[in-house]
Order: sequence, then C-alpha cells, then structure tokens
Amino acid sequence: MIDRDHCLALDAGDPLRAFRDEFVLPEGVVYLVGNSLGALPRHAAERVRRAVQDEWGGQLVGGWNQAGWYGQPLTVGDRLAPLIGAGPGQVVVGNTTSIAIYQAVAAALRLRPERRVIVSDVQNFPTDHYMVQGLAGLLGGYEIRDFAAGRFDDAAVVLLSEVDYRTGARHDVPSITARVQEAGALMVWDLCHSVGAMEVDVSEADFALGCTYKYLNAGPGAPAFLYVNPRHHATAENVLSGWHGHAEPFAFEPDYRPAEGIRRFAVGTPHVLSFAALEAALDVWERVPMDQVRAKSMALTSLFVELVGDALELVSPADPAARGSQVSLRHADGYPIMRALIDRGVHGDFRAPDVLRFGFAPLYIRYADVYDAAVTLREVLDRELWRDEKYAQRLAVT
Amino acid sequence: MIDRDHCLALDAGDPLRAFRDEFVLPEGVVYLVGNSLGALPRHAAERVRRAVQDEWGGQLVGGWNQAGWYGQPLTVGDRLAPLIGAGPGQVVVGNTTSIAIYQAVAAALRLRPERRVIVSDVQNFPTDHYMVQGLAGLLGGYEIRDFAAGRFDDAAVVLLSEVDYRTGARHDVPSITARVQEAGALMVWDLCHSVGAMEVDVSEADFALGCTYKYLNAGPGAPAFLYVNPRHHATAENVLSGWHGHAEPFAFEPDYRPAEGIRRFAVGTPHVLSFAALEAALDVWERVPMDQVRAKSMALTSLFVELVGDALELVSPADPAARGSQVSLRHADGYPIMRALIDRGVHGDFRAPDVLRFGFAPLYIRYADVYDAAVTLREVLDRELWRDEKYAQRLAVT
Repeated sequence: MIDRDHCLALDAGDPLRAFRDEFVLPEGVVYLVGNSLGALPRHAAERVRRAVQDEWGGQLVGGWNQAGWYGQPLTVGDRLAPLIGAGPGQVVVGNTTSIAIYQAVAAALRLRPERRVIVSDVQNFPTDHYMVQGLAGLLGGYEIRDFAAGRFDDAAVVLLSEVDYRTGARHDVPSITARVQEAGALMVWDLCHSVGAMEVDVSEADFALGCTYKYLNAGPGAPAFLYVNPRHHATAENVLSGWHGHAEPFAFEPDYRPAEGIRRFAVGTPHVLSFAALEAALDVWERVPMDQVRAKSMALTSLFVELVGDALELVSPADPAARGSQVSLRHADGYPIMRALIDRGVHGDFRAPDVLRFGFAPLYIRYADVYDAAVTLREVLDRELWRDEKYAQRLAVT
Repeated sequence: MIDRDHCLALDAGDPLRAFRDEFVLPEGVVYLVGNSLGALPRHAAERVRRAVQDEWGGQLVGGWNQAGWYGQPLTVGDRLAPLIGAGPGQVVVGNTTSIAIYQAVAAALRLRPERRVIVSDVQNFPTDHYMVQGLAGLLGGYEIRDFAAGRFDDAAVVLLSEVDYRTGARHDVPSITARVQEAGALMVWDLCHSVGAMEVDVSEADFALGCTYKYLNAGPGAPAFLYVNPRHHATAENVLSGWHGHAEPFAFEPDYRPAEGIRRFAVGTPHVLSFAALEAALDVWERVPMDQVRAKSMALTSLFVELVGDALELVSPADPAARGSQVSLRHADGYPIMRALIDRGVHGDFRAPDVLRFGFAPLYIRYADVYDAAVTLREVLDRELWRDEKYAQRLAVT
C-alpha cells in the first residue's frame, strides 16, 4: 500500500532532490508538462538580463567578439554534446528542430544519391514527417516509406524518434542504428523526447537532432541542436548553406565554400537572446548525474502507473525500461479530463485524438507530486468532474 | 562652413530628437553600426524580463495560449507590416534571413516550374547568394545568373537587396519589380538594409524578407520576417513545411496540409525570448513618422559626406536619394583605419576587402555625432594614427 508518507520518504532519500530549488515552479501546481516546456531555471533570468543589458546594451555590435555570440552555435554545442554521447566539435546549435530535420535528411540524401527511398515514422511527431514531405515534394522522385514496413535495403535514410511523443515508447538506438546501417542507409535520430530524460548515446548514428526546451529547460522556442557524425564532416552538405556555415564568413566571398567540421551546418545569425537561456540551462546540466536522472525517471513513471491502476488505459509500455519519462493514458474524453485536471492544479497535456500525457522531469518532480497527481486524476474520473461543460471548449494550443 | 555649433542647432530642430533617449547608448561613443546591430531600446529589457519571468516562469506551457506565443509569428508580422508597405496577414516572423531567402526563392521556383534560371546579385550580401547556391545545388538543372546581366525573360525568380550592404546603393523597387514581372519572373526583395531606414513599399513584389536586428533595433539574432504577396497565398508552397505552417498543427495529422494565408510560411516553434525584444522594438516604431526618418537619414549621410570631403574615396552614391542610410568609403588599409577609429570612440565597421562602413540610424544619431565622427576620421588619416601595429590584427567578426 503506497501512501503519501511513503512518497515523502522517497523524496527525502532522492539524490536529485536539491535540484528542484533551482527551478521556478508555481505554488499549488504539479507541473507534468516538462516534456513539452521545461521549467525556468532560477538563474536564467539573470543570464538573459546580462545578454540584453550588459552584452547588447553595453557592447553593441562588439558583442559578436567580446561576448562570444559569433561562436555560440559551436561553443554551446560542445556544452550540450555530453548529454547525447557526442564529443566536442560534433554538435551545432541554432534554428528549430524542423530546420535541423531538413538539414539532416537532405544531407543524407546527398550522401546516398543512388537511393530514392526515405523511411519515416508516420507515428512520429508531425513536424518530422511534414519536413520530409516538403523535401521529397521539392525534389520529386522519392518514395516516403513508413518505418513500420521495416525495409531499409533500398533506403537512403531512416528518420526516427528515440522516444515517441505520443506513447512515450522508447526505441532501442543501438540495434536500430546497426540494422539501418547494415542495410546501407543512414540513420537520423530525433532526440526531442529523450535528451535530458535519460542517458542518450548517438555516437554510432549518422545524424541526430532535437530541441532544448523540453527536459533541457532552455525556454520557449529555445534553439535546436544538430549532431553530425565526424565520419561525414568532410563530405556531408548543408543544403541550407547560409553565411555562418561558410569557411570564411567575413571574407564575403561570392561563392559558398563550406567550413571544415560541424560549423558548415550553421546557417544564419544565431538568436542570441534565446541562446542565453540555453546557456543557463546547461549550467544546471553540467552538475547532473544522468544515471540518477534515468533511475528516478523510471521510478516516477512506475509509481504513477501503479497509482493510476486500471482507472485509464495505459498507452505507454508497461516496462519502464521501454518508455521515456512520460506516461500516456487513453480516454475518448481525454480533452475535458485534462482540462478538469489542470483546473485542479495537475498540469499534463492532451494529444489528439485521445491521449493524456504526463511528463515527469526528474530534476524538479517529486514522488509526492506523483502521488497528488494520481489521486487528483482518480477523483476527476470517479466523480466525473470532467463532464462540466466549461472543459469542452478547445484552446488554440492543446 | 559647417562647425559643431551648426550641428547642435540642427539637433535642436530635429523632430526625431526625443527618440534618442529611448535607447541605451554607451558614453563617449558615436555608434555608427546601427546598420549592423541596432541599439537596445530602453524598455526592451523589461519586456524580455517579463517574457522570462512572468510568462515562462509564471505561465509555463500555458504561455502558448495566455501570453500569445503561439500567435506571435503572425501578430508580430502584422505589427511589422506597415514598415514595408504590407497589410495585415501578409507577413510572418521567425527563423533567420537565410531561411526566409530559401523559402521565398524555393516557393518562386515552384510557381514557375517551366523556368530554370535564378537571377541573383553576386554583389549582394553573401548569404543571399549562398542560399541560392545551396538550393540550386540540391535541385540540379538550374542556372544562377548575375543580376548585372540584366536578362529576366527566361528567369523564374530575381532576388535582390533594396540597399546594397557594402556600397549603400539603393535600387529602385517599383521599376525593377515591374521590369522583372513584365518578363514573367517573380521578384524577391531583401530589405535587410532598408527597413527602418526609409519608407519601404513592397506591395507589388512577390516576396520580400529581411532581418529585424539592424535599423529595427530588435537585438542580436532577432527573428527575420517574410512577406508573401496575397496573390500567391493560395498557391505558394513552403518547402520548409514544418508543423507551425500546418492548417491544424494540434490535430497531429500524418500528412502536411498547408494553413490558409501567410501562416503556411511558419516553420517550427518560434524563438519566444527573441520575439519579446522585437515586440519592444516595434513599440517604438509605431510612433515614428517614416518620412521624417528618411529626411533625417539623407541629411545625416549628406553631412558626413560633406565633412569627410575628399579625404577618402566615396563608394556610396553621391546623390542621397540613391543611397540608404549608410556611407561607405574606400581605402586599401580600411581595416586598421577602422580599428583606430573605434579606439577613439567612433564605431563603424569594415567589409572586405577595402570598405569602411558608417551607418546612420536616424532615431538615435545626432548631427553633432556626425560632426565628431568626421573630425575623428580626418584626424586618424591626417596623423596616420592607423599605422600603429596594434590595429593590424584581425578580430573574428569584423
């Protein structure tokens, strides 16, 4: 029998418990949407203030040199690299996940010009599949094949998410990477729903990418990252060949000449203010033992699954090792149920058509929070509180 | 004979003089690099703080609805539209200029599938030409022709900057647009060096784009904008077909279905913190009479040209109506000369191989600043102060 005192005891023994104080979390809210937008690291406000007032205000255009803005896509990439099992000079930061997908898939197609199949997961987060459709539509002559077909021997590239955004199911990176590469295709991993929630290792992948605003806590619309395996650095092409990827951007040469190494995947001028918050987020991550994050993540999701019991259908895998740091539940009236929960201070989100998602960010979610969330969910269901008319109306962003 | 008192009198009569106090400018510096990175609007710091602490920290994921983050690419686009002669629902904000160039040129090629020539200006800011090269390289079968060749009758698209970044020369938008369109090609204008410096009218253009961190003062790496003429809204394709351009992003449909209107040109998740500074910058612009900006801009650049006299070769057009808000001068030792100037508090920049650029942002540059800058430049030249060894060493960003 699990009660709240048991959960409080688990919190007292949690080796990560001190990290919660480094985040701003509203009173009276259990925030289980860190898989969508991570919480604000307390010191990020000061870091962004410094970027605005001291750097932009004080150094003006000199900030490109003095404050290191020009180098940020690579210096921040180097700081992020350990979180995905990459080394220095292998990650570039900037743009959005959508843009990084386009760069990676297009580069892969150029590296496999004789192949005309792109394997993509129709269950993947939509933008992944949409970007592939846009690229294939522009090029013509490409087949987009669903990952579920399981055939890679004529594929140029396979694009897949390590953790599924809707179900939380986790793919096995090493075995799929090996299978894809043995078939002669290139492997692109989307890490949006795994980075910061578990130990990630893409060192065998050809490309990898992801956002930084979910478990990494870098703020709304924070810059994305792109990893390119060093074995492709000399040959991979960035079709979005902007001046920041040029060998000598300030030589103002008429023709594009790619930089050596990962810099060739930089595109335009980096969004400096958004980078500042990402830097603050990485200040925290540099002190976090990722094995403890994964252990706590599995414990939190397992506790939630156990406490919810059979009140709702479990969409996520029952085995914690087979899922990310989220639990997805199914109900035909998932939308009003989630609205009723939020009204009672338990914040999850809803993914059409019928999935309730609960994300457990191990740096700031406590076992007692899990307990409170599960109890509230059972109450909303048992007392049918979600049938109130006010919960039916859809918001722009769900 | 122009002396400093005459310039002070001009400042006293300047109808825009009050705007200077709305910007943070370092003591003892004449900042003539507003054409590269505009100065910090005083209240932007508070607007960004609010985005970080009140919106991200206080609303968390709810900010997408409550703080209006989700709508920002279009709501901010509507606020920016009057500055380029566009109407509501015609401008989308986000990404970088490089990305916007790719979107516009690719969309134009799709609208003119029977034509295989892209006209681009080899003298244009390099990223424009580089992005075209990347796109043409990906597609194959396209000729890139220099704008100077003057032939458009077989061109799909013409990409050109209204004001040249290096020389400051201004193209005539209406006449070139008409010529290009009469030849059956589509016209894409890059407004990076004109928006915020003069009245801009792209209402006849097919596409237009630009950055917001130069004369618009929206901060380092602020989001770019993309204008699409309403006559193309139903047919133009965004090849960077990310989820934010989908008709129903939160329906999570497997196939891309473009939104109606300008929203289809949105791509990924907007960089919210960078948007906040842009919003603050637009708060200022909404009170600025653009005809006064252009009048003062021409007066400032003319004053500088007159005061510099024949001390250096004038690269910019001598007629103020034929140039933007910058004056470019040529000297084989331009780099050390600019370093020596900066050392004496006059900040311009250098563009390889031999151009010294001086930008005059009419909202915060005074006639007396122009006087001081010209006197300092003459002193550096007359006394050969730039020959000091310390000025020879190149910085990463020039």
